[in-house]
Amino acid sequence: MSILVVGSVAFDDVTSPSGSVKNILGGAATYFSLAASYFTQVRVVAVVGEDFGAEQEAVFRSHSIDTHGIERAKGKTFRWGGTYADNLNEAKTDYTDLNVFETFHPQIPKEYEDTEFLFLAKIQPTLQANVRRGMKAVRLTGCDTMNYWINRTPKELAETLKLVDVLLINDTEAKMLAHETNLPRAANKVLAMGPQALVIKHGEYGATIFFREGAFGIGHHPFRAPTLPIDEVKDPTGAGDSFAGGFMGYVASQKELSREVLKRALFYGGVMGSFAVERFGTERLQSLTRDEIEARFQIFRELTHLE
Amino acid sequence: MSILVVGSVAFDDVTSPSGSVKNILGGAATYFSLAASYFTQVRVVAVVGEDFGAEQEAVFRSHSIDTHGIERAKGKTFRWGGTYADNLNEAKTDYTDLNVFETFHPQIPKEYEDTEFLFLAKIQPTLQANVRRGMKAVRLTGCDTMNYWINRTPKELAETLKLVDVLLINDTEAKMLAHETNLPRAANKVLAMGPQALVIKHGEYGATIFFREGAFGIGHHPFRAPTLPIDEVKDPTGAGDSFAGGFMGYVASQKELSREVLKRALFYGGVMGSFAVERFGTERLQSLTRDEIEARFQIFRELTHLE
Repeated sequence: MSILVVGSVAFDDVTSPSGSVKNILGGAATYFSLAASYFTQVRVVAVVGEDFGAEQEAVFRSHSIDTHGIERAKGKTFRWGGTYADNLNEAKTDYTDLNVFETFHPQIPKEYEDTEFLFLAKIQPTLQANVRRGMKAVRLTGCDTMNYWINRTPKELAETLKLVDVLLINDTEAKMLAHETNLPRAANKVLAMGPQALVIKHGEYGATIFFREGAFGIGHHPFRAPTLPIDEVKDPTGAGDSFAGGFMGYVASQKELSREVLKRALFYGGVMGSFAVERFGTERLQSLTRDEIEARFQIFRELTHLE
Repeated sequence: MSILVVGSVAFDDVTSPSGSVKNILGGAATYFSLAASYFTQVRVVAVVGEDFGAEQEAVFRSHSIDTHGIERAKGKTFRWGGTYADNLNEAKTDYTDLNVFETFHPQIPKEYEDTEFLFLAKIQPTLQANVRRGMKAVRLTGCDTMNYWINRTPKELAETLKLVDVLLINDTEAKMLAHETNLPRAANKVLAMGPQALVIKHGEYGATIFFREGAFGIGHHPFRAPTLPIDEVKDPTGAGDSFAGGFMGYVASQKELSREVLKRALFYGGVMGSFAVERFGTERLQSLTRDEIEARFQIFRELTHLE
């Protein structure tokens, strides 16, 4: 199966306690695509500027990612600069230059319209909704959002959430979206807004998936996947997008949309997120093998497995 | 097997978003004892004042907890008042009246000297070390500490850690103790200080146990136990002590000191901690059944279990 992702492609400058890199390929759609590419065929809808060249293109192409949906616009690609202090959980944004991304209106190429899996990375909610409505064959829509949209465009976001099957956000975003500090109660409120399932990412502690009653089979107990404690987190940028790529990519690779598939997908999400943070930018995601992914999946599984 | 706990017995005033209670039985040794009492015979060494009466005594006695080691001193029992805001992870201390606890010098009754399992709750490190040295038949020593001792008495604490088998602390304490913000690296530094195993409690995300190479069997991979997301956390006071009680109580109830036993103990720790926070003070811990404990153990197990 194929998966279509709509989101940002960017150039990043990142500083962390492990060092500093400039002008590296980044953006939610980039991290997502690379992570998902180990599981399924990926199609990208994004916009880049004239500074996006053959070198960047090759990163996608070498993972068989379909880049026909990447629009080339006049001007510069989206640029972001961020710094992580000792607490790697939070980036200080040094600058955000939206550039060509500011007027991004996703166009879905005709040949993408039959894609069965869709991921809406954290762009403006009305754009997300428009993309979803334009797709006729979608079996499952995953969606991300961020504090900026939760605060600025709550009504638009509420409309988008009605069209979404699985929302993937972090603890802070879930609590903000639900106006509720207790996590399971926040989860129930978010599920009442539309999604069949809600994945809440807990950073280094893993992630929990909450289900609407009756969604994806019997029962509505949540499920939790841990992540491996990592000795050296070099760069947390893109961890959430890589998680989403592993999660959605695995789902798209499976025949059935069962609860058990979503549980395994939660583990694969954690696996891809944990690889992403080991090197700066997308370096680690570019060089993985499926065997390495399976080996880490087993480690994660054993991490909480009682005999 | 029996387990001996040394620590505080207190009266607490607690306010949380769920309400307010005054003058309720609290203290680390109390939470620990009640949680451990569902698994094994518990002996308590603590000090109380003249305000500790038959009603409080009965709470221990009704769980067959041996209270001969609770010293009665002139004056008032240790009193603590705390308030939890919406973020239930952190208490604002309203007051701390050490009272009789200020001059507490734990005395181990003769009939306790053969106890095989020992838990040193978060009292002054030199007192912890003295208790450990006075015990001749101990097979496993568990220990807790807190920021106050990590900052004020680092040398004394370092001496104590050499005598400890399993240290149970939270993320913040582990990072502070190791002067290291990365959790697995912090864990390795703490293990180098003495303990065979280190349990790091992550609050609502569960806990991880890190092992010294070769400790408790082959391998040194960490193990993680999740906790159940709780719909209503009424009072987080004593969650960590209840975790320790479940962990140590289960270990003391088993014949062998294997890695598998410690892994299960980590789950039982989470189970007892999750019960503790459901009601104010020790209310929930007083009224449990072993069946309820086993049922929740199964839920926790299934929470991360893949088919």
